[in-house]
Amino acid sequence: MEVVVIGAGVAGLGVAWRLASAGCRVRVLERARPGAGASTAAAGMLAPVSEAELIEDSALELKLESLRRWPGFVASLEAASGVELEYRGDGTLVVALDRDDAEQVRRHYERMVELGLPASWVSGEEARGMEPLLSPTIPAAISIPSDHQVDPLRLIEALVVAVERAGGVIESGVEVEEIEVWGGAARGVVGRGADGAEARWAAEVVVVAAGAWTRRLRGLPGRLGRAIRPVKGQMMALLMEPEPVLRRVVRAPECYLIPRRDGRLILGATSEERGFDERLTAGGMFELLRGAWETLPITYELPLLRSWTGLRPAALDNEPLLGQTSVSGLVMAGGLYRNGILLTPITADVVSEAVLSGAQPALAAHLSPRRLE
Amino acid sequence: MEVVVIGAGVAGLGVAWRLASAGCRVRVLERARPGAGASTAAAGMLAPVSEAELIEDSALELKLESLRRWPGFVASLEAASGVELEYRGDGTLVVALDRDDAEQVRRHYERMVELGLPASWVSGEEARGMEPLLSPTIPAAISIPSDHQVDPLRLIEALVVAVERAGGVIESGVEVEEIEVWGGAARGVVGRGADGAEARWAAEVVVVAAGAWTRRLRGLPGRLGRAIRPVKGQMMALLMEPEPVLRRVVRAPECYLIPRRDGRLILGATSEERGFDERLTAGGMFELLRGAWETLPITYELPLLRSWTGLRPAALDNEPLLGQTSVSGLVMAGGLYRNGILLTPITADVVSEAVLSGAQPALAAHLSPRRLE
Repeated sequence: MEVVVIGAGVAGLGVAWRLASAGCRVRVLERARPGAGASTAAAGMLAPVSEAELIEDSALELKLESLRRWPGFVASLEAASGVELEYRGDGTLVVALDRDDAEQVRRHYERMVELGLPASWVSGEEARGMEPLLSPTIPAAISIPSDHQVDPLRLIEALVVAVERAGGVIESGVEVEEIEVWGGAARGVVGRGADGAEARWAAEVVVVAAGAWTRRLRGLPGRLGRAIRPVKGQMMALLMEPEPVLRRVVRAPECYLIPRRDGRLILGATSEERGFDERLTAGGMFELLRGAWETLPITYELPLLRSWTGLRPAALDNEPLLGQTSVSGLVMAGGLYRNGILLTPITADVVSEAVLSGAQPALAAHLSPRRLE
Repeated sequence: MEVVVIGAGVAGLGVAWRLASAGCRVRVLERARPGAGASTAAAGMLAPVSEAELIEDSALELKLESLRRWPGFVASLEAASGVELEYRGDGTLVVALDRDDAEQVRRHYERMVELGLPASWVSGEEARGMEPLLSPTIPAAISIPSDHQVDPLRLIEALVVAVERAGGVIESGVEVEEIEVWGGAARGVVGRGADGAEARWAAEVVVVAAGAWTRRLRGLPGRLGRAIRPVKGQMMALLMEPEPVLRRVVRAPECYLIPRRDGRLILGATSEERGFDERLTAGGMFELLRGAWETLPITYELPLLRSWTGLRPAALDNEPLLGQTSVSGLVMAGGLYRNGILLTPITADVVSEAVLSGAQPALAAHLSPRRLE
């Protein structure tokens, strides 16, 4: 089977790896370079429950299942690529900064208990016993000792190697403009090659994994072309020196802090709806720096290495779009929003199953793109 | 006369221009590239009185005289170089953010009146009448309508052209390690050329204009080698869009804001004593962003273009070191600290006079480097 995948982020590469391994002829077409969209801008936390999703979350089961698949995914991807993913399980603290936060964090904790997720409620003092440089004003926290993180740069690097070793081809710097559909079926895509010349790529199946840039593709059925919007996140990296100031991931109301093995401390992330404006702003940087300072005051002293932004792809209902559209051979792996890294294993599995079987997998029954056509 | 100038910042280039114009054979030796030290990191305000210097300021007369010389300096430098300096006279507002600040700003105002400098005391409402986007909480301000600014990048560019047109030579990427002194007189300098090979430059007069890097030179008499320390300043540039958000320079207690014609809004500057550590820090960026937000709330919305640092050269007593040392033919143009751009004209005049006459000019009688030997 001849497959074209639009987008070399974690979604597109994961699906491409599975399909190439299953014997399909796979070509991944990438606008910029692998991971250049939301994937490598991401923090890499593997957390299925967050503040934003306490009330309703129809993808929760999918997230929990993806989380369960992560250890196996790491093992097989590291074996296939030879790249170490920095899959770390040092745990997470979800902290409250004051008594008002504490109520919200408490609801978060109760939700985790309800879901049977491993978490414990700790006092501020206990939290500082675990991470001594946390702010003395923190009244309480959730400790999630089993929480993992992964380095998104390593993940992309590994997926690129795995796709290519499985026989897939990745073309970077090409612009896909339109999906060719006739007789109710996808026939390929057209756009511009890396040399700027018009180009056409024929395919029996087209997988759309273009993230926020899905909005710029022509040829999607019905209203699907407008169903994904970009949600900007601003982030920065500090340098922990002379030694790490944090071991666990810490999530505070306005900011999360993620220590990496190489000495970086990643701060993220704002959430702004400004279309395709990818620029850093004074306000975004200010909120991250303030959030970090209130949570872990020593961050004030640390060198600033770099700041960047990413555009998260969010569907109109903020849930993933996975599987068959109403057009035969046109499949989506999109709208992963805040959970692209967490959902990488399940997206690869579910969407490749949709391609190979031609049917909507049960796990993603309610996440079909048809709901937004 | 054969002259070597160490350092192609505003001090070194200004002196070199004067000396080359007077017929000396001048060679400027620069560690990195012209202006790479404090000069192009500077904001370019030409303000002789600031919060930091209300109590004692033995260089005040020098600053006021330099300010008087700026218009003539601009005219002659623009004529000599053909480069427009963006010398702007849109004025300054020194604002208080709350009633506590207001007392300090009031003392600043009284000091200006005492010195006969043109300034008026305006209410918060009047200040917002002049700059409508200022914070509604500002209670009062000093308006200094005659205040000027200049673009330091243009100033360096103009000085480079002027030096070269006057016959001077600028060598970039060379490392001066030691001043050669024998028989009580400077004979030249030794170090490494741009090719990394050992090199020697003979001279009858050596002018030290090496900014904070003076500390790394060997061969200065007595304790002069340790008399200048680096004081880091962190800065950033925002983009004013779609239109300028400010016309005048605004100075608040923690931050100043400088609008440029090209649409940039420069925010400065922290003041930190960390040796030669030139890195940005989370705390430095945080203070600038907070200061700007409190002063001009709309800055929160603006794109962030760039952040950078500079090392100001501060003498032990924080005053300039201008003129003859105890070593014959060894002259200093250093320690300009926060006032390098303001003091550029007078430094060029006074230090070139010291070189040509061999005596200490009256204007800088009390600023001789000998006081710190």
